[in-house]
Amino acid sequence: MLFRSISADGTGMQETADMLVRWIEELGGTARKVATPLHPAVVGQIDAGKPHTMLFYGMYDVQPVVGETWMVDPFGGEIVDLPGFGPSIVNRGVMNQKGPLASLFNVLHSMRDATGTLPVNVKFLIEGEEELGSRNLPGVVEAFREELKSDACFFPFLAQNQEGRVITYLGVKGILFMEIVARGGDWGAPTERAVHGSNAVWFHNAAWRLLHALSSMLTPDQKHILVDGFYDDIVPPSAEDEALLAKLIDTVDPLDELMKHEVKRFKYDLDGVDLLRKYLYQPTLNIDGIISGHTAEGTKTIIPHEARAKVDVRMVPNMVPERVVELIRAHLDRHGFSDIEIDVLDAYKWSKTSVNSAPARAIMDTYRQLGHEPEIWPHLAGSAPFYLFTDVLDIPVVLGGLGHGGRVHSPNEYAPVAGLKDHEKSIAVFMYRLADELAADDAGKQ
Amino acid sequence: MLFRSISADGTGMQETADMLVRWIEELGGTARKVATPLHPAVVGQIDAGKPHTMLFYGMYDVQPVVGETWMVDPFGGEIVDLPGFGPSIVNRGVMNQKGPLASLFNVLHSMRDATGTLPVNVKFLIEGEEELGSRNLPGVVEAFREELKSDACFFPFLAQNQEGRVITYLGVKGILFMEIVARGGDWGAPTERAVHGSNAVWFHNAAWRLLHALSSMLTPDQKHILVDGFYDDIVPPSAEDEALLAKLIDTVDPLDELMKHEVKRFKYDLDGVDLLRKYLYQPTLNIDGIISGHTAEGTKTIIPHEARAKVDVRMVPNMVPERVVELIRAHLDRHGFSDIEIDVLDAYKWSKTSVNSAPARAIMDTYRQLGHEPEIWPHLAGSAPFYLFTDVLDIPVVLGGLGHGGRVHSPNEYAPVAGLKDHEKSIAVFMYRLADELAADDAGKQ
Repeated sequence: MLFRSISADGTGMQETADMLVRWIEELGGTARKVATPLHPAVVGQIDAGKPHTMLFYGMYDVQPVVGETWMVDPFGGEIVDLPGFGPSIVNRGVMNQKGPLASLFNVLHSMRDATGTLPVNVKFLIEGEEELGSRNLPGVVEAFREELKSDACFFPFLAQNQEGRVITYLGVKGILFMEIVARGGDWGAPTERAVHGSNAVWFHNAAWRLLHALSSMLTPDQKHILVDGFYDDIVPPSAEDEALLAKLIDTVDPLDELMKHEVKRFKYDLDGVDLLRKYLYQPTLNIDGIISGHTAEGTKTIIPHEARAKVDVRMVPNMVPERVVELIRAHLDRHGFSDIEIDVLDAYKWSKTSVNSAPARAIMDTYRQLGHEPEIWPHLAGSAPFYLFTDVLDIPVVLGGLGHGGRVHSPNEYAPVAGLKDHEKSIAVFMYRLADELAADDAGKQ
Repeated sequence: MLFRSISADGTGMQETADMLVRWIEELGGTARKVATPLHPAVVGQIDAGKPHTMLFYGMYDVQPVVGETWMVDPFGGEIVDLPGFGPSIVNRGVMNQKGPLASLFNVLHSMRDATGTLPVNVKFLIEGEEELGSRNLPGVVEAFREELKSDACFFPFLAQNQEGRVITYLGVKGILFMEIVARGGDWGAPTERAVHGSNAVWFHNAAWRLLHALSSMLTPDQKHILVDGFYDDIVPPSAEDEALLAKLIDTVDPLDELMKHEVKRFKYDLDGVDLLRKYLYQPTLNIDGIISGHTAEGTKTIIPHEARAKVDVRMVPNMVPERVVELIRAHLDRHGFSDIEIDVLDAYKWSKTSVNSAPARAIMDTYRQLGHEPEIWPHLAGSAPFYLFTDVLDIPVVLGGLGHGGRVHSPNEYAPVAGLKDHEKSIAVFMYRLADELAADDAGKQ
């Protein structure tokens, strides 16, 4: 697994995908590379003749190492004795996500060698564009919807934090990423290029236009989104979620997040579970970036003819990305900004898996069986396209496994060797527990 | 005059300044280079033993030609037969400002050769940083305030437009150029670096902060500045100005400005003199540029820890830059944005010279004597640091002269040869007329 599979520049992508196909075939399965406009995905399966099937979702690409200084060759697979962690692999991707990927194959080999079979059939969907935003994953899932049919989806992940606490997320928020653009036109402002600033007295300015349009959408205290209907589809946390929240606050201190991010205060004068509830159950309207006009050093007086902002919305249940775009469009139109353009660059909905689903029960049982009480988050404040599993394929999805790693996307990404061994053990236990829990569900339905 | 005196990279600056000192000395005057932190200014005088003194303000630096494609060597001083204009010098700086600069020296030589003297004493202030915003000119004027004492200031300029119409400006607006910055701090937002966008639900965002702060200062229709007291110091156009405006609208069509700048409509549903009055007598609050966070291609969700805008204010009589900064500061504080920083990069006041002052009467008489009825603007919508003359040295200032040139700061900058000859003639006439008008003023005072 020492290929440099760097999706950003394409290094080693085909070779790594070929290797994964070979690995699946060596386990007695079938697999193939699926071409996308960018880097291939690997789709495959191992039919163990079992009543249930686990879909393994993974990724084989990593971030580049350009401009980074490492203590060892970032693609040398070296083991370094790290203070506090002991012998650890220091390598690009060992945490995100090649350690867990290799672990799964180790586990499958061991199971087959030891028992001649697997507890569940396994299907594989391994993409090569995760670090580029999984842009072709939806197309692959749609195209292979039948072939990927399974009972549950699993994404192996080193789920222990630095203190050894196991952290589990049962879902993600959805995301809508837009470019919002003001351009000179019939409403006014220069249409072709910036013009001399002395005309500002009688010409409109595209930067002012964008600022007024955006400002109209959020209160100055940044707490409340002013787009009509924005909050309408939101459902309050379920009883199941409230129970998880009440337990979560025992181990989570929001103040740690302030300190970690070097932020002096929260938006809300709340604490404890009330603050956590805001964090997880409120949507956001966030400016990721904005640019217009003269931004270099020094003075230059111009009226910009164009201004662009990158804006993202994080969506909670049951918000729908298409609906949010409609509401923002309607807001802009109603406030006289019908000239403002909205370009959607990315949009997918939230995803949730019940803590009572078979794979969720299986992973929690696995942790407990191996001596760990997991910290369970009803969902992440961040986003991932897990709706592809929960909504498109209509199966529950869990991510997890023992083990620790860190410095993802940074120099000296690491994972302690002992944790990787625990990770393999936990995957094996999980697969057996999953088979049992799926069988129990079948029994319950009959 | 074929030195490449490019202030941006320093090419030929010392040599050109040395040459100007020599030129003044060759005319029997005294002169010296005055060092500044950047490029020297030339200060000098020719004492003709006359009762009055004209201060000649000029510039010897030009814009670079990097990346430009010219029809001839941009520093070759070549004459090209241009359609519609006839034989014309095509050279960097011929219009802005080396043509007029050389013309003045030609005129002074001719006058001395023909009459043995000059109609007025002449003082010289020739800077080498005009294209860099005249940043050291205030210091030079302050330091040489006594030595530069004169009765009037003159800036020779090719004042005829493409159609041959003579255009005169009797003043300029003032300018205040600020960088307005929002940074994470005690109020919230990340303080050290951008953090992951999923935290937007409970962390403040510096880009939103800046947008709300700026938006609070201007109505969404961009017509009215909402900073308390902003308009308080403004005086309505004087009777003299109203008379000039009423005449100006005979030859000026604001719609030409829309077309020239590819703008579809004005801010105001006005026309004629009412529109022109807005243009010249209203201040502006203009965003020249804004930048924050992720502005490259693609998606990246972050909360910016900093956002910066470049904002300029054009000031009309009797606004005072320091007062405007105070008002904006007070506005931000009152609206809860006391954390927002204002960095002043440039600030100088407006400048006006009365149409009834001696140099204004002299230049108008010159035009009429040479067969041209000038189009007189009470002032420019743009800015220049002419307050150094009208306020610091306390003398009226006029700019002008016959002749035409174009493509300033662009490839193939040109000035027709016939116009340059007219320019020299007009400078000579102006100097005699100025001597007469200054004498008339003296007589009137006695």
